[in-house]
Amino acid sequence: MIHSFLMIGQSNMAGRGYLKDVPPILNESVKTLRNGRWQIMSEPINYDRPTAGVGLAASFAAAYSLKQKVAEIGLIPCADGGTSLEDWSAGNALFDHAVAQAKLAQRSSNLTGILWHQGESDCFPERAAVYQEKLGAIIKQLRLELAVPDIPLIVGGLGSFLTAGMYGKYFSSYTAVNEALLQFAKTQPDTYFVTADGLNANQDQLHFDAVSQRILGIRYFEAFHNRQHIITPLTYEQEILNTIYNRAQTLKEKTILLEHRFASGSITQDEFVAELAAIQQ
Amino acid sequence: MIHSFLMIGQSNMAGRGYLKDVPPILNESVKTLRNGRWQIMSEPINYDRPTAGVGLAASFAAAYSLKQKVAEIGLIPCADGGTSLEDWSAGNALFDHAVAQAKLAQRSSNLTGILWHQGESDCFPERAAVYQEKLGAIIKQLRLELAVPDIPLIVGGLGSFLTAGMYGKYFSSYTAVNEALLQFAKTQPDTYFVTADGLNANQDQLHFDAVSQRILGIRYFEAFHNRQHIITPLTYEQEILNTIYNRAQTLKEKTILLEHRFASGSITQDEFVAELAAIQQ
Repeated sequence: MIHSFLMIGQSNMAGRGYLKDVPPILNESVKTLRNGRWQIMSEPINYDRPTAGVGLAASFAAAYSLKQKVAEIGLIPCADGGTSLEDWSAGNALFDHAVAQAKLAQRSSNLTGILWHQGESDCFPERAAVYQEKLGAIIKQLRLELAVPDIPLIVGGLGSFLTAGMYGKYFSSYTAVNEALLQFAKTQPDTYFVTADGLNANQDQLHFDAVSQRILGIRYFEAFHNRQHIITPLTYEQEILNTIYNRAQTLKEKTILLEHRFASGSITQDEFVAELAAIQQ
Repeated sequence: MIHSFLMIGQSNMAGRGYLKDVPPILNESVKTLRNGRWQIMSEPINYDRPTAGVGLAASFAAAYSLKQKVAEIGLIPCADGGTSLEDWSAGNALFDHAVAQAKLAQRSSNLTGILWHQGESDCFPERAAVYQEKLGAIIKQLRLELAVPDIPLIVGGLGSFLTAGMYGKYFSSYTAVNEALLQFAKTQPDTYFVTADGLNANQDQLHFDAVSQRILGIRYFEAFHNRQHIITPLTYEQEILNTIYNRAQTLKEKTILLEHRFASGSITQDEFVAELAAIQQ
């Protein structure tokens, strides 16, 4: 049975890292929910906007696969750029969409965790003050509707780069949101906080860059796996990533990559046939 | 109120045309449902696989916008590559996913049409023989669950190139499926058939190329708009396409394109600021 994870939040959960900046992650044990069914994962996983790219879920799932070699992992992409906690209120379209996707996933998987990253759109003092209360209401209703009362929830901090960019004035309350996320995790059952310390952004100073998203995914996995808060960067996060990158591709994975190159017009039919014969030897 | 269209079927509805082969279509009046909410359309619209590309929906919507200048158009992408009629049976995940998406769309739009393109996975004599019956059951249940009993349904023919490629042996019954689609449209209320005659494929001889998808979208629109079957290529289809391509971009559209270039790292912040000032003058 697939172990599935619901991805909710805003753009840094959807992922805006540049694909060209990091080695690809392909693992035949890692799937994404597409149209209610499981397909082999490829990035972008969470295609909410044309700018969707690398998020934290790919390295999260790859790290899970390293530890749980027999399990298949399923990602349920429901994050949406620029959305506030208010947008995520129960009964609104985003919430109901996520519930519908998760219920479709539950037909063929065990819903095993919820991955949340959000808060940039709530970086105002009056919003930060009610962040814990509002997030609590969303998560309570989500666990209820999906009948997963004890499911672990991982929440991640906002990047300290936010105030440095051309949009910096909108994020002066980001530390208050981070404190709310940490306190929420410390006071709620089955909830764990992950720091964004040491991570970097794209030139817009809004979105984690691809290298940082890969690391954030490792931190999310460690928080999930060990059921603990990750308050400081992990000494071994790059080592886990290297193990993921250096994993030998299976025949099936090589075939999938080759089929994509043919289907997208990158190689001719003759090249496809020749390369297919070569990898099948 | 947005006029919305449900996109269902297999890979040629999802779209596998190469984006590089055709001019882009961007129109601020044309939206796509993402996570239950409407976003400005960008291609690929129907991101079911990493090979998703140009489908028929973009030119369909642009042609609609030419004729209905006051309306906003909404596309609901639910097509999925490689799927058979059996996969689309009511109660299966694909069907229930499409219903859930359409219901979310109905909160903020009038569901105005259903666009169907499917059949490559049913090119076997025994499947072609029951194609009309099975499609009829799917559409009947869909209209019932969405409470749109008279909604127009547009169905398109399969390409005659299918038997020419390296996978050609799987498609020897494609003419029987086309005949079933035509007879279905002729005998069912509010159903119209669109020919694929004269259209071409990618090198795989499976998927309409991008130029052909643009034309197919015009034919789908004409079938919808005039409530009639399109049995032969239209003499004016390229003319409509040229009008779409030559439409002047609005300030909002120029801004969106510029923001995408910045967010995806194609231009620096200084270039972004300078170009934004230039287009806003």
